[in-house]
Amino acid sequence: MKVDGKPYRTIWLTPNGTTVQVIDQTLLPHDFVVRDLDTVEDAELAIRTMIVRGAPLIGAAAAYGMALAIAEDPSDAMLERAYTLLLESRPTAVNLRWALDDMRALLSPLPPAKRRDAAYRRADEICDEDVEICRRIGQHGLVEIRRIAARKPSGATINALTHCNAGWLATVDWGTALSPIYQAHDAGIPIHVWVDETRPRNQGASLTAWELGKHGVPHTVIADNAGGHLMQHGKVDFCVVGSDRTTRRGDVCNKIGTYLKALAAHDNGVPFYVGLPYPTIDWTIEDGHRDIPIEERSARELSHMMGRTESGEMATVAVLPGGSPAANPAFDVTPARLVTGLITERGVCAASEAGLLSLYPEQSKAA
Amino acid sequence: MKVDGKPYRTIWLTPNGTTVQVIDQTLLPHDFVVRDLDTVEDAELAIRTMIVRGAPLIGAAAAYGMALAIAEDPSDAMLERAYTLLLESRPTAVNLRWALDDMRALLSPLPPAKRRDAAYRRADEICDEDVEICRRIGQHGLVEIRRIAARKPSGATINALTHCNAGWLATVDWGTALSPIYQAHDAGIPIHVWVDETRPRNQGASLTAWELGKHGVPHTVIADNAGGHLMQHGKVDFCVVGSDRTTRRGDVCNKIGTYLKALAAHDNGVPFYVGLPYPTIDWTIEDGHRDIPIEERSARELSHMMGRTESGEMATVAVLPGGSPAANPAFDVTPARLVTGLITERGVCAASEAGLLSLYPEQSKAA
Repeated sequence: MKVDGKPYRTIWLTPNGTTVQVIDQTLLPHDFVVRDLDTVEDAELAIRTMIVRGAPLIGAAAAYGMALAIAEDPSDAMLERAYTLLLESRPTAVNLRWALDDMRALLSPLPPAKRRDAAYRRADEICDEDVEICRRIGQHGLVEIRRIAARKPSGATINALTHCNAGWLATVDWGTALSPIYQAHDAGIPIHVWVDETRPRNQGASLTAWELGKHGVPHTVIADNAGGHLMQHGKVDFCVVGSDRTTRRGDVCNKIGTYLKALAAHDNGVPFYVGLPYPTIDWTIEDGHRDIPIEERSARELSHMMGRTESGEMATVAVLPGGSPAANPAFDVTPARLVTGLITERGVCAASEAGLLSLYPEQSKAA
Repeated sequence: MKVDGKPYRTIWLTPNGTTVQVIDQTLLPHDFVVRDLDTVEDAELAIRTMIVRGAPLIGAAAAYGMALAIAEDPSDAMLERAYTLLLESRPTAVNLRWALDDMRALLSPLPPAKRRDAAYRRADEICDEDVEICRRIGQHGLVEIRRIAARKPSGATINALTHCNAGWLATVDWGTALSPIYQAHDAGIPIHVWVDETRPRNQGASLTAWELGKHGVPHTVIADNAGGHLMQHGKVDFCVVGSDRTTRRGDVCNKIGTYLKALAAHDNGVPFYVGLPYPTIDWTIEDGHRDIPIEERSARELSHMMGRTESGEMATVAVLPGGSPAANPAFDVTPARLVTGLITERGVCAASEAGLLSLYPEQSKAA
């Protein structure tokens, strides 16, 4: 999508054929800074410190991380070291493992001399595939939005609510949850987005609001606490969120707080959609509550807040009383029973094993 | 309760017999500052800018505001002017109107020369009554906590979850929701409190964490998004919140986000209690969703955050991208069906008209 008129992806290979560049998402919305990734350590640090974040983008960054490692040393030992290093950078997103397994399976059988080119070519492909997947998620989601619009008076604004950032910044381009919204907006459907602030890291306030604003989509930032009240008062026509991991039965692991919005949507008859690309589906697990490890992040994300002072400088301020501990689970699991539909690159299905298998019959256990 | 070993209330009359003092809650947890209220305008400003907040404390401050007005000018005109000025300082809390009606009904029939002393005497009484009410709420709530403790292994920690601040800072002393927790802690029951940060004003992170810490109650601050996840994993034994207004049928209007926690509690079989003093019950309305006006506060509460920098100064930082609007409804309504019990100064009852009338039979329409 565009930033000040110039088209960008979130990650790209530079003309030197080795260095990868990414948008530093820790500085948004205040500063737009592009960072070089020259080594696998740079890639690992970028994932761990959330310079890049969002399940699909993490997968792409991990793929390029493998390529950077192989560019430095194409040995089997480096392949294993890079795989392990990158795998441990974030514990929850399944795309990370998916991309690393894909790269290792490709590179491992090759003679070392052929690994470098193959690694970059595959990382490029993973990025291009992600863009196409997200474009298709948007097209399928657009059908749902048109259906919702058809139930409202002609020309009435459609109000969406989203949590965290599952926009183009979370992917290589287009986004997952936000792709249908961009496509509806581009198709001339009047759409407005309630943007959950998404504490403690404020991805909604800092990333979703920023990217919607840059694209010209009307939106309003709200506290995470406000969505239930808006739904009680008929001010939300549908919710749409992304997913970090989706189980075989349709349980959705996504940013902490997603579950609360799904409960409110269910209580008020508001459709609750999840936009997800197939690599976030974990066919090996069924019960998200039981089987998905939830990353516990630093208490400092809660106790400190970064922003711009009136004099224009960036500053970090402490907002908790000294001595009060904080806990920071980063994700929760929304049970499938609360999800109206899963929007994937192959279409929209019920959040259930039968629903997912209707789109991905090759994953049937009998198959 | 105590602050650094010294007992405090949140509001008190100074020895000069006219000036009222309050703790400036906008500066907590960073600075502990006591402010003088010398005029009704000072009182109105203190309520409107949330130097004092919390439904019971707002009522007490409004009562002293009437006394300050009468001390300046005991005329009927001033009585009416002060009533109107104070009533408009905050639109949602019913205690405000309750205290102002009480003061006006007392003062209006008196000759002007007798109004000053009567006004201060009644404001003092309102404060003392609030302390006694809160102490009793704590005693009744303690019975519920003992019942919950009895279902756990002996000596196991009881985990409570609370939203916003309904502690002693929200009242004159003891608190409403937190009074049972203080009494359980003082009785030697091992209790730990999950404290919702409570965006956008952070009353949980800045006030509840502060006062629990000063009293020595173990607690952990969490993002508002985290409570549902904790309940899914059995880490919350009960929720307890305050109420800004409770309808005749037991709908509870409280800080925005309360409804989401009540939904999660209901979904996970976690008891959800509301601690409230009788002045927050609005017997004139039944349907909280339909009949309670919800205050919309400044977008700046969401877009800016105050805290202490590493160099120790207080600073305010902007956290939203420029140009992104924000909406800030301050309260929501939790329907009675999601509330396990209302804890009042007279006991614990079901959140229903029958439940409330069992404790307040004098409010029966037939009575």
